[in-house]
Amino acid sequence: MANDHVTDPTQATDTDPLVVFTPSGKRGRFPLGTPVLTAARQLGVDLDSVCGGRGICSKCQITPSYGEFSKHGVTVADDALSEWNRVEQRYKDKRGLIDGRRLGCQATVQGDVVIDVPPESQVHRQVVRKRAEVRDITMNPSTRLFYVEVEEPDMHKPSGDMERLIEALETQWGLKDVQTDLHILQCLQPALRKGQWKVTVAVHLGHTGQSAKIMHIWPGYYEGSVYGLAVDLGSTTIAAHLCDLKTGEVIASSGIMNPQIRFGEDLMSRVSYAMMNKGGDQEMTNAVREGMNALFTQIAAEAEIDKALIVDAVFVCNPVMHHLFLGIDPFELGQAPFALATSDSLALRAVELDLNIHPAARVYLLPCIAGHVGADAAAVALSEAPDKSDDLVLVVDVGTNAEILLGNKEKVLACSSPTGPAFEGAQISSGQRAAPGAIERVEINPETKEPRFRVIGSDLWSDEDGFGQSIATTGITGICGSGIIEAIAEMRLAGVLDASGLIGSAEQTGTKRCIEDGRTNAYLLWDGSAEGGPTITVTNPDIRAIQMAKAALYSGARLLMDKFDVDRVDRVVLAGAFGAHISAKHAMVLGMIPDCELDAVTSAGNAAGTGARIALLNTEARVEIEDTVRNIEKIETAVEPRFQEHFVNASAIPNSSDPFPILGHVVTLPNVNFNTGGGDASAEGGRRRRRRRD
Amino acid sequence: MANDHVTDPTQATDTDPLVVFTPSGKRGRFPLGTPVLTAARQLGVDLDSVCGGRGICSKCQITPSYGEFSKHGVTVADDALSEWNRVEQRYKDKRGLIDGRRLGCQATVQGDVVIDVPPESQVHRQVVRKRAEVRDITMNPSTRLFYVEVEEPDMHKPSGDMERLIEALETQWGLKDVQTDLHILQCLQPALRKGQWKVTVAVHLGHTGQSAKIMHIWPGYYEGSVYGLAVDLGSTTIAAHLCDLKTGEVIASSGIMNPQIRFGEDLMSRVSYAMMNKGGDQEMTNAVREGMNALFTQIAAEAEIDKALIVDAVFVCNPVMHHLFLGIDPFELGQAPFALATSDSLALRAVELDLNIHPAARVYLLPCIAGHVGADAAAVALSEAPDKSDDLVLVVDVGTNAEILLGNKEKVLACSSPTGPAFEGAQISSGQRAAPGAIERVEINPETKEPRFRVIGSDLWSDEDGFGQSIATTGITGICGSGIIEAIAEMRLAGVLDASGLIGSAEQTGTKRCIEDGRTNAYLLWDGSAEGGPTITVTNPDIRAIQMAKAALYSGARLLMDKFDVDRVDRVVLAGAFGAHISAKHAMVLGMIPDCELDAVTSAGNAAGTGARIALLNTEARVEIEDTVRNIEKIETAVEPRFQEHFVNASAIPNSSDPFPILGHVVTLPNVNFNTGGGDASAEGGRRRRRRRD
Repeated sequence: MANDHVTDPTQATDTDPLVVFTPSGKRGRFPLGTPVLTAARQLGVDLDSVCGGRGICSKCQITPSYGEFSKHGVTVADDALSEWNRVEQRYKDKRGLIDGRRLGCQATVQGDVVIDVPPESQVHRQVVRKRAEVRDITMNPSTRLFYVEVEEPDMHKPSGDMERLIEALETQWGLKDVQTDLHILQCLQPALRKGQWKVTVAVHLGHTGQSAKIMHIWPGYYEGSVYGLAVDLGSTTIAAHLCDLKTGEVIASSGIMNPQIRFGEDLMSRVSYAMMNKGGDQEMTNAVREGMNALFTQIAAEAEIDKALIVDAVFVCNPVMHHLFLGIDPFELGQAPFALATSDSLALRAVELDLNIHPAARVYLLPCIAGHVGADAAAVALSEAPDKSDDLVLVVDVGTNAEILLGNKEKVLACSSPTGPAFEGAQISSGQRAAPGAIERVEINPETKEPRFRVIGSDLWSDEDGFGQSIATTGITGICGSGIIEAIAEMRLAGVLDASGLIGSAEQTGTKRCIEDGRTNAYLLWDGSAEGGPTITVTNPDIRAIQMAKAALYSGARLLMDKFDVDRVDRVVLAGAFGAHISAKHAMVLGMIPDCELDAVTSAGNAAGTGARIALLNTEARVEIEDTVRNIEKIETAVEPRFQEHFVNASAIPNSSDPFPILGHVVTLPNVNFNTGGGDASAEGGRRRRRRRD
Repeated sequence: MANDHVTDPTQATDTDPLVVFTPSGKRGRFPLGTPVLTAARQLGVDLDSVCGGRGICSKCQITPSYGEFSKHGVTVADDALSEWNRVEQRYKDKRGLIDGRRLGCQATVQGDVVIDVPPESQVHRQVVRKRAEVRDITMNPSTRLFYVEVEEPDMHKPSGDMERLIEALETQWGLKDVQTDLHILQCLQPALRKGQWKVTVAVHLGHTGQSAKIMHIWPGYYEGSVYGLAVDLGSTTIAAHLCDLKTGEVIASSGIMNPQIRFGEDLMSRVSYAMMNKGGDQEMTNAVREGMNALFTQIAAEAEIDKALIVDAVFVCNPVMHHLFLGIDPFELGQAPFALATSDSLALRAVELDLNIHPAARVYLLPCIAGHVGADAAAVALSEAPDKSDDLVLVVDVGTNAEILLGNKEKVLACSSPTGPAFEGAQISSGQRAAPGAIERVEINPETKEPRFRVIGSDLWSDEDGFGQSIATTGITGICGSGIIEAIAEMRLAGVLDASGLIGSAEQTGTKRCIEDGRTNAYLLWDGSAEGGPTITVTNPDIRAIQMAKAALYSGARLLMDKFDVDRVDRVVLAGAFGAHISAKHAMVLGMIPDCELDAVTSAGNAAGTGARIALLNTEARVEIEDTVRNIEKIETAVEPRFQEHFVNASAIPNSSDPFPILGHVVTLPNVNFNTGGGDASAEGGRRRRRRRD
């Protein structure tokens, strides 16, 4: 530290004042006159400082407590700290300081004292997450700011300016073996001279084993912040959170459509595009990188920050997007054995990926778990931490592929299941992406068999007053993934659909909503033809598509349960945007997920995005997830005979006279069968007796 | 090693055959059937292999000796090695094999045997240097080739292809923590499949502390080589050697003019250009990088290799060129305290410097010694190794600045002296760069005072038959640096020039060659006016310019001698292109260098370029020179009062009646004085009594 005081805190005796820090409880004796910041450093108390104790940055604010403290056994006199000084007054006048706060680098120990370090003065402060069941994020970002005073050049000791800066970082901050990028060398000399040999540098501390690198240099004391991006690169959308790397706050969030969509809606059609078109992979790589840059420009503008202050970015994505983003032809991912070019995490420079952020910005990609289970699934594992769960948790990230994790503290299994795009509204006769105009929620009256529904863009149900008005601009355009699931589950509950997935005729069901549709029947959800709008029906092929998708999802989960040797799980977490909108009740009626108490089913929202944010804000978490991924047992559904077996058995929709409790109600599924030719549709995929293997 | 044999060499007993390797003398007992390559590896014998013992690369050729060997105490039976096998026969048929040679991976030990490892089978073979007094170069290049067999992907163990390649490098070659560049990930999968999971990889092993990086990948076994560049980036010319990184051979050498010359002939005018023109430094950076790329294209074409096979490059240059090449404004180098942006060595990627060689190629810049003593001087120190010299050696690299090293095993001092461009023919009335048409050698008959000379481009002296014919195309255009030095020294020897540097009149000297030139006289070397050519004279201002330059050089050397507390040196090494052409006798007559036995003055040629080549071929040498440079004591002439003092005293040209032996002759300098006004020109700069301080 630059602030060298006469007192030597290492030479404290038993008669020296006792200093107790809260909330850590760390304590020690220090000679009279020891600055509080020095005492904190000596004890390893987490007290921030950018300026190294020079009274510039005010990061080391502390709150002394006066009086008697039975818990700590310390009586604190009013003069336990040195008097309020000019530096503190100047800071207070200029920037303001909460009453009772002192600057830790200015206030010195004069007697026994209890000192509280408020959260905003801690380097490794906690960023609180919205959901109660998951851990908070501990701040430990890759890049931190350090203010240093650099020795001036001397002809008698001709070392370079950079070498003297590196020496200052070592002696003033204890940073070892700091390296630099070429671009810093190019702007170093003017910065040092403009700042009169005082500069603030952003140092990328890297993760274990990497050497620290100087990222940026500002003349004098830099008051601003540096930023990082947590990016969830999905097949359909790219979503980014812009975070302040000093506070951990998300200062802007934004998303765009993945520009690769023009090469194919789903992943496999993009892999095909690369296979059929020479240079097709490169086209898609360029498209996604351009999209990324557009998104970054947009998010920086929204947050009103300079894009060049973004020094770190973490990306999560599925394996195909991972390869296409990196410029690797995804050819091998389109065929067995689905070999990844690389499965480990990657630490790259943003320029290597053509990203226009800070010229020295670093990029981190989480590791992939397997050829079908990507860095996005790793991010979900980081966010939901099944490996730290006492109870057995099933985490399902539903998308074009469902990534499934099952585990607890003992072990974690992972697989991917080819659900296809039906859950996203594709392959559905009236299906569409979740966008304004799409039916997203459905209820069917079991008596009248009449539906009511809600449309994205309106808060009203279709049978409420003003509904027509509320959808005047969007219209009713189709049905999205969550809508089709609710519709089918409600059809089953209302008895217009049997366990095998057949829709009854008007005669069989007693409602004119059931209309003939070729050799089968369809259920009419909405007839907009009078106003020139669409007629939205749920057809038997729609049911089949959803049956295939949910069977794939269920079978993947069952396969992991087999491998775990259990018949039920304690908790289910639905991740992904789709998971956020899906109704647990309807998912269970459909038999998408295995048996579980219904209130043990929760939605994690965009858990992959949250995982990216954790890895951005805490480099320790990167080491942790790399370790977790190495230990996850990967199950390849394509080569597991049991998967096929489960799949065949899981296509039916639950058929049971057993009532089961849903959200406090008792639900009984009607025992109807519209298959005139009879059938062998079993119901493994749904209602199963709750039994444990013994 | 892939070639796993049944026998386990670690379990040898006293009765097992004894294997002695020459020239190392390493010996050990090995079970019957141990491959010679395995025995060599076990004993740490330097026996090359790229394919890891698979009988593909033939790098492990050895020569068994049969009969009795008193030195080694071994009697070798004819069947001491296994029989010549099919793999060896196939290799011999296809590529040829010297009689008596065997493949070390195929021949197995069957009895006591003495095995010679020929130089070309050694990894760390010696590259022999032309000059006897310097050490040979030990091959230890940054980048080596490794042939590996990679495990195929398996859905049950879904690791990435790269992770399996890295594992293969570790298990088959013992390479730890190998990392990779993004571009390798982009071409990895097709290469592995094309090579049927056998590939050759070029690995950059880095220097201590750096992690190994995969640079390139070839399907199957790659027979070719990879290349490196040793580049001497001078103010005037850029010279490069292209080296084979397998053999150490220089396969092409080439040079171009530094395109920065259009911004200023000398360094200080380039620094001024940068100061006077906004963006001027960037213009010069672009110019030198473009020139570099043109040179690389030219040299690769000359060697008929693909430029993309150049994976490593080492650069040496003076501080201003260093900064301009790196894109750093050299502003600070133009004024005290001459602060370098960075003085340490730099390991960069070629793309950062816009160099179009291998996309992952690495670049190494030697450390700078001080603000005026650059990486070129460090390279001279590496080549001439004063720090390893038993006797006291003075190394002088003469250019626009003279870099001077003085030292021995105990310590090394360094300084730079501002000689200015006179030694390069600039600031001389008839001066020109060393190019065809320039007078480079001069003799003046002491009796007749008539000159004879030689011109670059002709092997004849001007008074020999056919001279006129031989210069018909070039003509006689001027006088270059070495020419002017010889001319002035010869003028002094012939008595047409006095010790203070005044040319006598025709009357004083008795020759009409001495002509009036304003208020002083000039010496007419060549009158080409009859044929419309130039009149080449040596004028008094020319003498002054050379006096200034030689005084600067001499004073720098003297200053270091003062610091070393000596009055004379044991050896003088003249480095640089100019050093190669300068005549030691004339340099000493002029008083350019301090007292020394004349036959202890040698020319090192382009020692900076040689130093670059050493650092290219041997990464250990990089560590060594970094260490040496840290220990070199830097003397800044600008702040040393003694320098100024020496400079004033050194401007005269030796004036002594003491005869001194030059190349076996005894030379006496005439004791003339043309300074009619008298003068105090001392002759410290030249003839000094040989005395040692005691």
